Amino acid sequence: MANHTLEGSRCEAIPRQSVSQRALIGAVEGTLADFLASQIAALDAVDPALGGFARTARDLVMAGGKRLRPTFAYWGWRGVVGPTEPVESVLPAFGALELMHTFALVHDDLMDESDTRRGRPTAHRIFASQHGEHFGGSAAILVGDLCLVWADQLLSRTRLPAATLLEVRDRYDRMRVEAIAGQYLDVLGESDPASWSVERALTVARHKTASYTIQWPLSFGAALAGGDRRLDEAFRVYGTTIGEAFQLRDDMLGVYGDPAVTGKPAADDLRTGKPTTLLMLARRMSTDAQLAAFADGDIARRAQIIAETGAPRRIEEMIRVRVDEGLAALSEAPIHPDARAALIDLATAATQRPA
Amino acid sequence: MANHTLEGSRCEAIPRQSVSQRALIGAVEGTLADFLASQIAALDAVDPALGGFARTARDLVMAGGKRLRPTFAYWGWRGVVGPTEPVESVLPAFGALELMHTFALVHDDLMDESDTRRGRPTAHRIFASQHGEHFGGSAAILVGDLCLVWADQLLSRTRLPAATLLEVRDRYDRMRVEAIAGQYLDVLGESDPASWSVERALTVARHKTASYTIQWPLSFGAALAGGDRRLDEAFRVYGTTIGEAFQLRDDMLGVYGDPAVTGKPAADDLRTGKPTTLLMLARRMSTDAQLAAFADGDIARRAQIIAETGAPRRIEEMIRVRVDEGLAALSEAPIHPDARAALIDLATAATQRPA
Repeated sequence: MANHTLEGSRCEAIPRQSVSQRALIGAVEGTLADFLASQIAALDAVDPALGGFARTARDLVMAGGKRLRPTFAYWGWRGVVGPTEPVESVLPAFGALELMHTFALVHDDLMDESDTRRGRPTAHRIFASQHGEHFGGSAAILVGDLCLVWADQLLSRTRLPAATLLEVRDRYDRMRVEAIAGQYLDVLGESDPASWSVERALTVARHKTASYTIQWPLSFGAALAGGDRRLDEAFRVYGTTIGEAFQLRDDMLGVYGDPAVTGKPAADDLRTGKPTTLLMLARRMSTDAQLAAFADGDIARRAQIIAETGAPRRIEEMIRVRVDEGLAALSEAPIHPDARAALIDLATAATQRPA
Repeated sequence: MANHTLEGSRCEAIPRQSVSQRALIGAVEGTLADFLASQIAALDAVDPALGGFARTARDLVMAGGKRLRPTFAYWGWRGVVGPTEPVESVLPAFGALELMHTFALVHDDLMDESDTRRGRPTAHRIFASQHGEHFGGSAAILVGDLCLVWADQLLSRTRLPAATLLEVRDRYDRMRVEAIAGQYLDVLGESDPASWSVERALTVARHKTASYTIQWPLSFGAALAGGDRRLDEAFRVYGTTIGEAFQLRDDMLGVYGDPAVTGKPAADDLRTGKPTTLLMLARRMSTDAQLAAFADGDIARRAQIIAETGAPRRIEEMIRVRVDEGLAALSEAPIHPDARAALIDLATAATQRPA
């Protein structure tokens, strides 16, 4: 799954009355580090080679990233419990989301044959440097699998009533199925772009980004707090709309983003031929002459033709409609004010960003 | 992981006073079929391509196999609850073990580049036939991931107190970590045979076969019954010893098995160079002259040299010692008699088999 970047300055915008974003990430990472140290020690005792395998997994988990899923889960939880509840008891659950995300990134990078992630070699590249390409791929599959199982183990350490954890797990499982389904459609779209469509591109955005990154982490967080039925629907609408808008912004940046800001080549999606909503919409809105010119054009010309179809304007409108709908759902929800403010900031950061 | 075959006639040897082996497998498969039908319907509603993806997963799960893990879990459970307790409430947990096993087989087959399993194309071959090799590998990773998450979802449907399920999950998680660790060592051994040893080959056997196939499924089953601390140690000894003996028998069949019975090429392990305990022991017991002759010899000559080192005799002794120890632990354990009888039969079938 793509490694989207939220605006760095967002951290400062989050109200301080709850745990700050920086403090939250520090606490989640501390929980992860403690858990991983105990797992590494246990595997090291079996065989040093297993210790090395586990340490590679730990380094991938701890390599950074925006910790978006713990952040949304935190505000989902905080939205129910209010600003004074101590966060310690639910930190393992937030950490579990991040372990699960490492699983997804490791497997996705292998599928995409990506060499780097966050400026470091990807898992399959690290292992390939030890015993060759075939070993690299196999060990990357296994290191992803290990992170997924570790996520479950860490989730089990959340100090909550067993019945609450069952409800949390139900949402967690649905999140995982949607993430895998979204990734399958993404892989299928890149293997079979001719059969792709605006609708399918939006389905991928809904599953891979909206459900997996925003909706279910929020809902998972609310369930950690014992849940609040009235919030479920608001979080579903907010997660779906802001998540889709986030992905649509990404589609725009994938064609028109500034390489100096995004850190990716100009018009990267046109190079890889990724069947995004923007490209599918441009194809649908093209005249025959534009289609022909697109087929013959270089990258810069293609970006220009896409603009001429009117698709980018339509995408901006889709983003606006979604953000409005998501924020409206939030404004009516019975949610603690600091969580509401944080989620408004996050929505803005996710959908109005330069990279 | 290798697709070991227990003697078919075993089914008849299991006492009838509990559910018969055939009825148990039928019930587990019925539970799986119902669960999978509901998952397929949900994914089909999102996109027919996802329905197809889910149906492929279902076909892999339902393609058969010996259902060894549900069988050991059943007897672990039956050993605590006795012969009259209805099995229905714990069937989802047995089914979960089989879904988890499909995950392991799909990923292992991809790592081993195996074309067939149980006479049918492997997952990555099925998907490769749709959209090429790269898609095949990616979709196989995802279909394995999906089965692992489905396993958790089915496990959650087990109708037991939440606290009991937490204990069951603890054992399930340890089983999964050991299976992944064992597979990592297996892959490492095949990538780096020069650094391999008898001890490491036995570590692989302990994790990949003993822990994953026998010890933890038994322990998982006992936990489903609310657990019995006195049984844990007996199941640990039985699982470890019989599991290792099972793998050592497999090593022997991998060199000396009758191709007409095993269904595999003669001396298959010598062809692939798999660093089994038998081969590592033969290397350790070899004279310099035998090592030189081994390096130059063909497959048949190599099998002969291994026999001349005395390693096969030593392996037979290791099998005997382990089976004796495992059965002794069982004979002293406070376990219901029909479960004890079934586990004795399973131990015999696993370690004295022609294929």
